[in-house]
Amino acid sequence: MKARPGPTTRVRIRELSGASATDRRDDLATEEPLEIRLAAPDGTRRTVAITMRTPGHDFELAAGFLHGEGLAGPERIAAIAYCTDEDVPPEARYNTVTVRLHGPIPDLPVLERHFLTSSACGVCGSASLDVLRDRCRPVPGGSLKLTPGLLYGLPDTLRAAQGVFGKTGGLHAAGLFSASGTPVAVREDVGRHNAVDKLVGWAALTGRLPLAEHVLMVSGRTSYEIMQKALAAGVPAVCAVSAPSSLAVDVAREFGMTLVGFLRGERCNVYAGQERIVME
Amino acid sequence: MKARPGPTTRVRIRELSGASATDRRDDLATEEPLEIRLAAPDGTRRTVAITMRTPGHDFELAAGFLHGEGLAGPERIAAIAYCTDEDVPPEARYNTVTVRLHGPIPDLPVLERHFLTSSACGVCGSASLDVLRDRCRPVPGGSLKLTPGLLYGLPDTLRAAQGVFGKTGGLHAAGLFSASGTPVAVREDVGRHNAVDKLVGWAALTGRLPLAEHVLMVSGRTSYEIMQKALAAGVPAVCAVSAPSSLAVDVAREFGMTLVGFLRGERCNVYAGQERIVME
Repeated sequence: MKARPGPTTRVRIRELSGASATDRRDDLATEEPLEIRLAAPDGTRRTVAITMRTPGHDFELAAGFLHGEGLAGPERIAAIAYCTDEDVPPEARYNTVTVRLHGPIPDLPVLERHFLTSSACGVCGSASLDVLRDRCRPVPGGSLKLTPGLLYGLPDTLRAAQGVFGKTGGLHAAGLFSASGTPVAVREDVGRHNAVDKLVGWAALTGRLPLAEHVLMVSGRTSYEIMQKALAAGVPAVCAVSAPSSLAVDVAREFGMTLVGFLRGERCNVYAGQERIVME
Repeated sequence: MKARPGPTTRVRIRELSGASATDRRDDLATEEPLEIRLAAPDGTRRTVAITMRTPGHDFELAAGFLHGEGLAGPERIAAIAYCTDEDVPPEARYNTVTVRLHGPIPDLPVLERHFLTSSACGVCGSASLDVLRDRCRPVPGGSLKLTPGLLYGLPDTLRAAQGVFGKTGGLHAAGLFSASGTPVAVREDVGRHNAVDKLVGWAALTGRLPLAEHVLMVSGRTSYEIMQKALAAGVPAVCAVSAPSSLAVDVAREFGMTLVGFLRGERCNVYAGQERIVME
């Protein structure tokens, strides 16, 4: 039986530097597929996603994915386990997660049409917002206030909280911070969406949703999907090292979220929700 | 009627620097959904993908996606057009591309099971390689030889060939280079897979496939999907500014491709296909 895949994989590489070459070993971020299956009490089963991910925190990834897509919140989840179905061979067991629901599996049309199409409007950015509007409420104004100093400190804190391997640049990181800038949880993955799913899944499975009064910090860019996941989790503020897309800004403005980008050193851009930023 | 979306979107932002704040305008990479539809001569139609992308080179994106997924090579494509179906409202027209095929639409099971599952093995890295083995042959050894000096020059050439906006860091870039390091084509997108699809689609629609004797350079990391797209296009060498995943290296080694990562300044790591690197 193949060993359970770990988060890193050691390979032999050749390093070129100037005109010289050296053979050495190197650690890579492991990338393996994860199949997420739903199971209902009546025995019905259905595969809802196959995503390429870095092994580790797989149950959180499944729970976070289901929550972010509006398929199942934590209250609907009875149990999560690696698959023991007879149709799954041993070498794939740790790449298949079955989420047992308390009730029936959501309607197939919901799964097939996913979240971007709307029969009323075809596909366009505003239709993508309409779909979110059907599922999510704006984040409450609340009392979260962020100073520039707190924001400037987040990237270093995220890097310090990452595993040693993540610091080498092979993995995307997503960190959840308290209103005072304290790191609450950090997750890493080859896929940036997966890192956020793992974080939201952790919050879902430990009864922490919605994540009001928290800040989500991601190591890369912000896109529609990242904002959708943050919104579904009730996170009022999202910060990123790099740029947001136009649709990420649209989601933030539509749903009352604060969105910060290019957070590097002692500077950043605030794209939405400036009322939560208080100058010192 | 809503204007056709452009590649950038202007927004008002607040820039924080130290303890001061300035309001100004900023250009963001536009992110809008693109629906890719197939149409057969008998009038059958089917949506095969909805992807979030930066508008521009949409026909290439569609052609590259279909080729990379093994759904339709350029020889099967009769025409590509923005959608004029009555069920698509005007504001979504430029977000919907219909690819008319010479023959019938590929079997639905192929589309639904996508490319990661194999009935023989469930999901695992080696099954992902099996699926590619059914569809793709190893890239030919050929005569492509790359010197360290040529490799070291690729990132700067890619950046120089990017649009002004891409240089700001909001977009992923993918560039195709000749064996002598000359840029042949460069495409950009908020999604790194889309940038590669646009490049491969350009090659497909201009009769350049397979891309033997070419080098693909990407601005980010390399994953299974990037390597799958490069392999389907017949590209023998892939270079990246950042790290590869374990499965990206597996694909490269299995199919005889050269894979270079961490290409920065006068150094890089060669993960596979070292026989194409000749020291000066």
